[in-house]
This record gives sequence, C-alpha cells and structure tokens, in this order.
Amino acid sequence: MKRTQTQADQRSAIQSGAQSKRKPFTVGRRELLSAGAAAGGLLAAAGGASRVLAAEPLPVPPQMKVPGRTFSGYGQPAKAEETVQRFLTKPYGDIGGGSGNSQTPIQALNGTITPSGLHFERHHNGVPDIDPAQHRFVIHGLVKRPLAFGVADLLRYPQVSRIHFIECSGNGSRGFLPEPVQAPAGVLRGMISNSEWTGIPLSVLLEEAGIETQGKWLLAEGSDSAAMSRSVPMVKALDDAMIGLYQNGERLRPEQGYPMRLLLPGFEGNTNIKWLRRIQVMDSPMFTKDETSKYTDLMPDGKARQFTLELGTNSIITRPSLGMKLEKGFHEITGMAWSGGGRIAKVDVSTDGGVTWHPAALQGESHPKAVARFRMAWEWNGTEAMLQSRSTDEKGRVQPSRKMLIPQYSAGNTYHNHTIHSWHVQPDGSIRHAYA
Amino acid sequence: MKRTQTQADQRSAIQSGAQSKRKPFTVGRRELLSAGAAAGGLLAAAGGASRVLAAEPLPVPPQMKVPGRTFSGYGQPAKAEETVQRFLTKPYGDIGGGSGNSQTPIQALNGTITPSGLHFERHHNGVPDIDPAQHRFVIHGLVKRPLAFGVADLLRYPQVSRIHFIECSGNGSRGFLPEPVQAPAGVLRGMISNSEWTGIPLSVLLEEAGIETQGKWLLAEGSDSAAMSRSVPMVKALDDAMIGLYQNGERLRPEQGYPMRLLLPGFEGNTNIKWLRRIQVMDSPMFTKDETSKYTDLMPDGKARQFTLELGTNSIITRPSLGMKLEKGFHEITGMAWSGGGRIAKVDVSTDGGVTWHPAALQGESHPKAVARFRMAWEWNGTEAMLQSRSTDEKGRVQPSRKMLIPQYSAGNTYHNHTIHSWHVQPDGSIRHAYA
Repeated sequence: MKRTQTQADQRSAIQSGAQSKRKPFTVGRRELLSAGAAAGGLLAAAGGASRVLAAEPLPVPPQMKVPGRTFSGYGQPAKAEETVQRFLTKPYGDIGGGSGNSQTPIQALNGTITPSGLHFERHHNGVPDIDPAQHRFVIHGLVKRPLAFGVADLLRYPQVSRIHFIECSGNGSRGFLPEPVQAPAGVLRGMISNSEWTGIPLSVLLEEAGIETQGKWLLAEGSDSAAMSRSVPMVKALDDAMIGLYQNGERLRPEQGYPMRLLLPGFEGNTNIKWLRRIQVMDSPMFTKDETSKYTDLMPDGKARQFTLELGTNSIITRPSLGMKLEKGFHEITGMAWSGGGRIAKVDVSTDGGVTWHPAALQGESHPKAVARFRMAWEWNGTEAMLQSRSTDEKGRVQPSRKMLIPQYSAGNTYHNHTIHSWHVQPDGSIRHAYA
Repeated sequence: MKRTQTQADQRSAIQSGAQSKRKPFTVGRRELLSAGAAAGGLLAAAGGASRVLAAEPLPVPPQMKVPGRTFSGYGQPAKAEETVQRFLTKPYGDIGGGSGNSQTPIQALNGTITPSGLHFERHHNGVPDIDPAQHRFVIHGLVKRPLAFGVADLLRYPQVSRIHFIECSGNGSRGFLPEPVQAPAGVLRGMISNSEWTGIPLSVLLEEAGIETQGKWLLAEGSDSAAMSRSVPMVKALDDAMIGLYQNGERLRPEQGYPMRLLLPGFEGNTNIKWLRRIQVMDSPMFTKDETSKYTDLMPDGKARQFTLELGTNSIITRPSLGMKLEKGFHEITGMAWSGGGRIAKVDVSTDGGVTWHPAALQGESHPKAVARFRMAWEWNGTEAMLQSRSTDEKGRVQPSRKMLIPQYSAGNTYHNHTIHSWHVQPDGSIRHAYA
C-alpha cells in the first residue's frame, strides 16, 4: 500500500481530533483511492466501524437454503428500500392534483447520478399522457423553413450524451422562512437531480430551419395542459441546448418530458420545457404567464427582477444529515455540489460553523453544469458540531452565506436560495437544521 | 455557427456517398457539438429527416385539453416504452427458474449509463431475499484481525464513485454457433451494462483486517443459495476493487447484489460476487465449482484454460441494428465500446465490411473500464452495406475479427467472444446479423 508523507501527516492530524485547527484528513481529487487506504489505517488503529468476527464457522443465512426469485424484464429497487421515495408537495390538494412538486430524497442517495425514478418533478398541471407516434415538435417563427419533426425523424439525427443537473429555481425556498424547517435534506434542497442526457444539439435543428437575422429569442412551449412556456435567449439555444430524448440510457421518463424535452444546462429548471411541442423564433422575449406571474425574484424595493436564468453555485451535505443519529468515531462527510456557471472547482467543508474550512475531495471527472460529489473523512468526538459545505465554481463564484444572500430579496421571495446549508450535530448524535 | 475547413471537407465527402473511399463525415471527440451543426447543414441541403411544416395554427393535441397525471413517489418508464425489457434465458425452464440470464436491450438504449432496471442479470440459483439488517460481510482467513461488517458499519467508511461496466464472460456466446443468429443486438451481445457504482475501496477493509504476508488470493462468496464463489488475485483486490453499495445513485438493486457486492472493474462479470457474505484471504486459488465446472475457456487441444479474468476490447453498433428498417438518406451510426484493460482510445467504423475504416467520435469523458459511446454520421444510398465497429483500448489492444479469434477455441467454447460484430443492411433497408 503506497503511503505518501502528506497522507501520514493527515492521519496524525485527524487522530489529534477533528475540531483541531490542524489540517484534517483530506485528499486531492486524484488520490481518493490511496486516501481511502490511509483512512483504513486510521480505522485499524481506532477500532474502525467494524466488529471483530465473533466465531467460526459462519452461520448460514436463511436465503442460502431456498432457491431465489426468478428473472424480471424490468427491475425494481429492493423491498427494504421502499421508504426511499420522492417527497410530494401538492399546494392545491386533490383539485390541483398535478400541480406542485416532488423532491429527490438526496439524503438516501450517493454518487452523482440520480436514478430516473427519483428525479424531482415540478408540474403545473400534471403529467400528460402523450402518444409518441402522434407527437410533433415544430420549429417556426422567424425561420426560413418552418419544420415539423416526429420522434422517428429525430432519432436519425446526430446525438450527444452529456451529464447535467436540472434544478428548480424554487429549490431551497423553505430557507426563506424565518425559522429553519426540521426536515431531511431532500425536503429542504431536493429539487436537484443529475442525469446523463442524450439528444440532439438544438443548434443542428435551428440551422436546418434557418434563423432569420432578427431572431434573438425563442419561445419554448410544452404540450401539457398548462402549456408551460418560457422565453430563451438565442445565444443559449446555439450554445449547449439540446432536444433531450434519453435519460440515463433509456427514453425519457413521462415526468421528465416524454417523448422529448428542451435541455438548457445550468438554466433554472422550468426553462427546460418538458413534452416540447414547439419552438418559435422571436426577436424579443414573449413575457409568458409563466415568466411574469411566476419565476421572478422579489426585491426589497417591491420590484420583481426578471430572467435570472443561470443558477448559482450551490452545495449541501447529504450525509450526515437530519434523520440520522451519529455514533462517536469515524464518519464520512459527503454531499453534492453544482453550479449553473460551469464545473465545480472546489468544495470546502467546515465542522465548526465556518470558523475553519477544509478542502473536500471531489469525485471522479468534473463535468460542466453537473453535480459533483464531495467527501471528507471526519472523526466525531461526541460534542456539538456545525457541519457546512461551501462550493466554488470554475468562474470563481463562491456559494454565499445566508447573511449575504437573504437580505438581497424581499421576505416573500421563494426563488434562487443557494446559500450555505448548516446541520447542527447535537451531543446525543442527532442532527438539526440550523441557520448559521 | 463556427465551421472549420475540415468539417466543410467532411460534409462534401459524405454528400458524395457513404460507400466512397473518401473520408466521410466524422468528428473528433471534442468537436461533436460543432460537428452536429455541420450535419444540420447537410440535412438542410439534403432535405434532412424533417418535414416542412404543413400549416398553422398548430393543432392542439388531446392531452392539452385535460389535466395530467399526479405525482408519484417512484417513477416508471412510459407505457409506450413497455416493450423495452430485458431478454430472458432460462436453460432449465421453470424447475431452475432462477438459473440463467437476462440481457440488456442495448438496441433500444443510447448514452453510456444502463438504467438499473435494465442491467443484465446472470444468476446461478435466483435472486435471494436478504434482510439488510441481518446481513453480515466477513473478512477472514489469512488476516491478523478477522472482521464482520453490517450495512450500517460500512456506511461510515470512506467511499468512492466510479463509472464501470460489468460484462458476463458469456456475452456474445451465440457468436460461437456455426450460423449467425438473427436476433437484436441485446440478445446477441446484451450481457454488458454500465453504471455509476459507489462503495468502499476493498483495500481499506483489507488493510484494517491486516493481510498476512502469505495472503496472495481471496475467495469471495455470495449469500445466494448457489453460494457463488470465485478466487481473486490479491493484486486486483488492492488495485481498484470495491465493495459496491450504490448503483446509479441509489442502493444496489436486488438483482445486482443488494445489500452489497464485490466489484472488480474489467474482470469477467461472475467474479463481481453479488450478495457478498465473505472474503477469505488465502495463499492460492480455491478452485471452486464455479471456476472449474464453468468459466474456463475450452481450447482446440482439449484442455481448459483457467482464470481468463480481464475482459477483451469489445464494441457493437446498436443503431442501426437488426429490427430497424432504414429509409434512404442520413442516419447516425452509434454503439458501445468497452475494454477490461482500461480506457477506450478509439473506435473505427466500416460500412463496407472492413474494406475501409473511419474514426468515429467518442462521447464525453473516457472512463477506465467503462462503456464509451461512439457516433458517426452516415448517408445510406439504398444499396447493400456491411456495418462494423472495431475498438482499440489505451493499451493498444484491438478488437479482433472472427477469423482471428474463433479458431483459438474449441467448437464447444462459450466464453470471451469479443469479435467484431457485423450488421448486413439489405437493399430494402432491413438489417441482418452476418458473419463477415
């Protein structure tokens, strides 16, 4: 097992206590495996989280004595995991049954990909039941050749596959309430999901239609019964926008826009129009109901700021988090970080409410406008701790504190809260949401 | 829209016909977006696969006139996609209901991630029903401290997330039959799946247990009723082996080893022991039933070669493929490439049965021992074509032809066929599997 001097230093540092101001056990992005080995050494010294094997021979568990279940055409999660579900919010109750949202239980997940069955949802009048053979997607307006595409037509075009997050602009809205809501991470900031999307660069289709010189904006409209629609700057459409056809390898899920959706990486979620039926090229924004009555930022002076499209630098610790009860000793602090501005450059973690910060390891390749997973080993000594994460993107934009961001809006605002999130570890090992 | 001289050259090349020996429309890895735009230009010139919009105003589809479906805790694929299922093979029928395999319908998928519900399966006596609270994983044998871990213990350890494929060593076994089987890509080579796995580096746990100096091999045993077990070299265990806990973000699916499995990236699938109950450190291989009665390569001289662990360089075109009927004109040729030896360095595509080869674009970041997606634009002129892909990995290992590989084995061999796969496009646009 290779062990560098630095890692040995880090080991002795963490052994001296996690609340120490000395550098704790942290690792560079490319070194996580060997760092894992170092943590193993630490665990061996400390007794770890393992149990010494009591006796041999090993008992034979009941499932080894009977034949197992047969094959299935399409698999489902384990029965023991059936509590891992999206958290549903229906502000209009059963009358508006399809209006509201569901949030990803990020506290129960790990890695960077969101399983498609747990991708968050935000619908304005429910999930439409669309016959893909009948569905048409149209490009019209200020174009030389208005075009219509069926699914079979689109599947012949050149495609791209990229990992991107989608985040609702209302993610974290409960953070504008005066007192911290005591709820799991998914309820507080679970309108973030990350998928491998495959589809056609929108620029390809726009070029085929031929954009007129005065075409500077698009209207994108969904074929749900809310006719959800947003205005999109042409510069974004010609940059990294896609017509999404596949999500994590398979065709889009109904809740994510089957049979096709618009993808605007890094832009607020509702602009990624689901069940896409048309794109109209325009010379200026349409000012649709969805971008005037909603999705504006309420400012302290009573004005509403419009077209805050690019999402801010964000992160949250998903483990440990509310709902878990810690035992003394070694734990991994891990969570998700993302930015609408590009790649995540670094994530710092604090266990003392921001007095000291330590760089966390980032997991694997860093994709632009995608969720990164951060990790940092930590030894909990049984006293109060305040766990925080703070992300920085490749443009140098740092995730703001509550003190910095909240006063920039009026009290009634619900959008674009991407402040540092705090988990308050109690002496008994339980965890509370805190404003810190 | 940026257009390089090279891309313009490529456009004129493809317009001159796909069977031409001139370089067709192909793109470098980092250029796919702008290449897509070039293909759009081509489509605009050629009439594309789009339809000119007939009339406005657009008809209002039925789903826009009724409220949509409400939210769900855990989503499922669209009803219109319910034929996208794993292909089941049960060689012992209902008596051995849990013995056999299911294969991923790779012809219906795109991107690189396999949705967990469609991950291929190979079970020797079915999927065990395991209570995760009761499950114990033990490390014993030639170690200083035999250890036992419950799920809760393991979740405190440092984890890593990495994208890796798992492939059955019997993938492509139908290719040893004397005549090409006429079946979709998933039936012929669908025992390949690619996931983001999250878990604990095995080296961390082995270091905690303390390997005795004579410990050179492991026995890994599953807690299914087949007690599936394989011998693993220690050098692999200390390299990139993991105890897998999460698959594509959520806890492992039952069919992939819930609550924990061994992951040996790039090694033949059956060594990635599911439902892992114990690892015994040994000084030599165990020669278990599973590595003597099965999973050996039958050689022409009557001997059996043992421990062919690292999987070969492989690829298959998934679209166009058998079951689709082409129309004349533009299509994207796309497929999957992978190697047990590391990253995919390049994929070449031929449309004339290997007379001429053209470099395909590789999608996104290249992960070691993971599926890469390749793409190449192609214009079908309505005559016979023989579509082939040939991958090369970072070690320079080139996917072999049938002529090279098949004679190396006896006729009864069923493992490790990773030869170049051929799709024969007929003049009517239908596609047949061919040996070429």
